[in-house]
Amino acid sequence: MAAALALAERGRGRTAPNPNVGCVIVRDGRVIGRGWTQPGGRPHAEAMALAKTGAAARGATVYTTLEPCVHVSSRGPACADLLITAGVTRVVVALVDPDVRTDGSGIARLQAAGIDVATDMLAGAARRSMGGFLTRQKLGRPFVTLKLALSADGAVAMASGTSKWITGPEARAHAHLERARHEAILVGRGTMEADVPTLDVRLPGLQDRAPQRIVLSTSRHPGESGGIPAMEAERAPLADPSFRWGDGGAAWGSIARPADIATLAGVDHLLVEGGAQTAASFLHDDLVDRMLFYRASILIGGGRTLPDIGLTDLAAAHGRWSLHDTRRFGSDRLDIYERTRS
Amino acid sequence: MAAALALAERGRGRTAPNPNVGCVIVRDGRVIGRGWTQPGGRPHAEAMALAKTGAAARGATVYTTLEPCVHVSSRGPACADLLITAGVTRVVVALVDPDVRTDGSGIARLQAAGIDVATDMLAGAARRSMGGFLTRQKLGRPFVTLKLALSADGAVAMASGTSKWITGPEARAHAHLERARHEAILVGRGTMEADVPTLDVRLPGLQDRAPQRIVLSTSRHPGESGGIPAMEAERAPLADPSFRWGDGGAAWGSIARPADIATLAGVDHLLVEGGAQTAASFLHDDLVDRMLFYRASILIGGGRTLPDIGLTDLAAAHGRWSLHDTRRFGSDRLDIYERTRS
Repeated sequence: MAAALALAERGRGRTAPNPNVGCVIVRDGRVIGRGWTQPGGRPHAEAMALAKTGAAARGATVYTTLEPCVHVSSRGPACADLLITAGVTRVVVALVDPDVRTDGSGIARLQAAGIDVATDMLAGAARRSMGGFLTRQKLGRPFVTLKLALSADGAVAMASGTSKWITGPEARAHAHLERARHEAILVGRGTMEADVPTLDVRLPGLQDRAPQRIVLSTSRHPGESGGIPAMEAERAPLADPSFRWGDGGAAWGSIARPADIATLAGVDHLLVEGGAQTAASFLHDDLVDRMLFYRASILIGGGRTLPDIGLTDLAAAHGRWSLHDTRRFGSDRLDIYERTRS
Repeated sequence: MAAALALAERGRGRTAPNPNVGCVIVRDGRVIGRGWTQPGGRPHAEAMALAKTGAAARGATVYTTLEPCVHVSSRGPACADLLITAGVTRVVVALVDPDVRTDGSGIARLQAAGIDVATDMLAGAARRSMGGFLTRQKLGRPFVTLKLALSADGAVAMASGTSKWITGPEARAHAHLERARHEAILVGRGTMEADVPTLDVRLPGLQDRAPQRIVLSTSRHPGESGGIPAMEAERAPLADPSFRWGDGGAAWGSIARPADIATLAGVDHLLVEGGAQTAASFLHDDLVDRMLFYRASILIGGGRTLPDIGLTDLAAAHGRWSLHDTRRFGSDRLDIYERTRS
């Protein structure tokens, strides 16, 4: 199942509105088929893996990160039916599909055909792996990752606004890799105008993975209390729903308020890249699920830091985030925090 | 030698102006004596270890974190002579003593007596272990550790000043343990007046290890540029030179400027505990050797952060600090940074 989860990562940021699933087929202790959801969401992982095995799947065990689907689409048959036809004898599922079209009926159909089914293997990791799909199902919006590059004292820029560079080349390369795992990247209008960011993926072999670019078209009104930006009256056009992988991010989409991310078509993973005011807007509205804090071993002092996020009581700040993982990149470190939701 | 270095830690913060040394004596593959510098600086580690071995030291190997001394004091004989008299055959030294009264002559005396001497074993760890003594020798001031408790976004307090509590009980207990490893703790006048900190060691069995308390008697003048406090004209009395362990920190000492730490008698390890303005003053003057950043997995947003430290160029911020170690305390993490000095 761990191998299936690793395969699932290959589809992340490219399969919306479908989940990024991974599948491994094993017979006699040997892996005979591997598959993952293809860009655009089809073919599904199970279909890809079965295409590799051919007739060898008879009697095999299938590990899949999500319950096989039962709905027939114009783009392909139901995976549960494919598995029954292939004659597999056992299916191990990490997570039951919350999609109302499946939601246990995939497992039921497999069992009705005499296939042995086990569930909940590495379910937590599968939930993390398919966060985009699950957040869309549960909260009706993309899974939002906030990325910030910070000094050890928490500054995202000097007081002058200078932020090139806080982190080193290894950390910045990793941040580019993260871009390739998201359907869209969002920045604030200030960042767009000041930095004219390309927001592309500058990594060999991944240049065509540049996500859709979106700007939060808000402006901050002087004297406003709390530091949260006022929203512009006019509504900017939504992110281009006709966007497809390979377009190279030619156009910018825009939204007027953080909550408008729910309307972004084809975006299940959104990377919010800054600046600090935009980050605060999303945090204020509790629209961040994961934070990537790239911390440099430098001190800035008196720099720009995260503005007000609406916290009124220090006790209320606790219990909302957990430090999930930490990685080192040269002299920098990446801290990955996850929102704890019940 | 690693065992000797661990023993040396027992003396840290209690041996000034002497170094905190550790010593292990081994014969026939068995440890027959262990010693460390006693509170007040005497007896030395080698004398303590030899007191354990008695005649068994004949033919033994001695591991000591610092070159044995050759100077006879009213408080005891020279350790090199003690080792020669004991009849040890080999002495392994981590670090040659930079004290002009020794500086290689301890090794020379041992060798003249026919003892085999090796040096530079775990020298880096020994340098870290005796940072207080070595900083006093080299820079004429205590080794300064800056401790801050921070949110994930770098705030040391809410905008209102509230900072109880950012970190959890495990992290705070560790911070108390760090207090016991310093001869003195310093806070700014604002922290002293606002928080009335006891600055004691609230850990079972270590209550009598409360270090001397010192206040930085500076004030910040409104409208002053840069955020570095102006210094008061009058000079406050120096930290009490008659302070001894066990006094329980009854009196407060004070200094007027960060650079005045050089005048603190009997203090080779100084812990600067805050607030943010005091931290910035020490960093501005490049008087910090080590930083303990206790980071909570919380966001504050718009909180109080480290003020200006005189940085004018982002490139100049790099290369000054290295992340030496990281530890977890509950949901918090301690990041230990060390000043990189050539």
